[in-house]
Amino acid sequence: MYHYTAIVTCLAVALHFFFALQVARARALYGVKLPAITGNPDFERVYRIQMNTLEWAPIFLPSLWLFAIYIGDAAAAAVGAVWVIGRIVYFLGYREAVPKRTPGFAIQALACTVLWVGALGGAVWRLVH
Amino acid sequence: MYHYTAIVTCLAVALHFFFALQVARARALYGVKLPAITGNPDFERVYRIQMNTLEWAPIFLPSLWLFAIYIGDAAAAAVGAVWVIGRIVYFLGYREAVPKRTPGFAIQALACTVLWVGALGGAVWRLVH
Amino acid sequence: MYHYTAIVTCLAVALHFFFALQVARARALYGVKLPAITGNPDFERVYRIQMNTLEWAPIFLPSLWLFAIYIGDAAAAAVGAVWVIGRIVYFLGYREAVPKRTPGFAIQALACTVLWVGALGGAVWRLVH
Repeated sequence: MYHYTAIVTCLAVALHFFFALQVARARALYGVKLPAITGNPDFERVYRIQMNTLEWAPIFLPSLWLFAIYIGDAAAAAVGAVWVIGRIVYFLGYREAVPKRTPGFAIQALACTVLWVGALGGAVWRLVH
Repeated sequence: MYHYTAIVTCLAVALHFFFALQVARARALYGVKLPAITGNPDFERVYRIQMNTLEWAPIFLPSLWLFAIYIGDAAAAAVGAVWVIGRIVYFLGYREAVPKRTPGFAIQALACTVLWVGALGGAVWRLVH
Repeated sequence: MYHYTAIVTCLAVALHFFFALQVARARALYGVKLPAITGNPDFERVYRIQMNTLEWAPIFLPSLWLFAIYIGDAAAAAVGAVWVIGRIVYFLGYREAVPKRTPGFAIQALACTVLWVGALGGAVWRLVH
């Protein structure tokens, strides 16, 4: 079984939940009432943190688990942990200003690229061997 | 195999599809033409029902399946069915008014919490035993 | 193992990544600065391509993998490839005009329906046999 990958998946799930809480908090803080999603740039940046992370969920999660299956549990969990850290860096930067989102975004994109290349490479390798 | 969890997953998938249909229906009903996503609060609430459910998909689905693997198929399916019911209650309330979204939201959040705690607890337990 | 389904999943992941790139490109092209997501209909259509594909991710991915498990790897990969093609047709049409999104949308919706029916049918069949 893939216990390390399962634990990192639970951490990524917790991060999605935490970002959802931050959006609710930002609504109260900046007075953006439901169902609106625009009207205050400080709110909109926090909302973009959540949405961008959500947009990458179907990139990260399938790549993580296929990497775990084809390459290995510990390696998948290690790269997956880098993704979680990258998303935390992204959150800390982006909530302050738009240009500060870049380092965290780059870290998580790199982690996803490693996972995707390993997943696809592993699947193709197994198919032809 | 995890037949019960698979069936509840198919029900959750059907719910995502149903909410997408409701957004299309609300576009026609309230005259919000693509690609706009704002302009009418009745439309925006239906759109928020779909988006909020989508935002919780990478929380619900991984937690559900890790719970099924670590705790059990029938238990995962039972809690997963509570999530589906919570989302239906959420839909019925939220489409009428913003404050009426709360009970359904609470039910589905509680179900996700149970799934997440079981998934993480199960993975950590297996790792150390 | 499900090598063909894994490869098609990696292609679907690449498509999500490609659509995210197109949104970034459309931001630069049409001058829609972060964190805004509205303001120019050409940008908004590209953003809707990404968002609609994202909205269908929790419909497509679980159905694809349950279909692979219950029906078969090669069949799941074949229908999953149709989904990817449908999404490319959707992208090529929708970025030009709203009405041109329909054929690609129909192809991917049909592929998802086949996957969902096979997944649910397979799970129920195994449960009662």
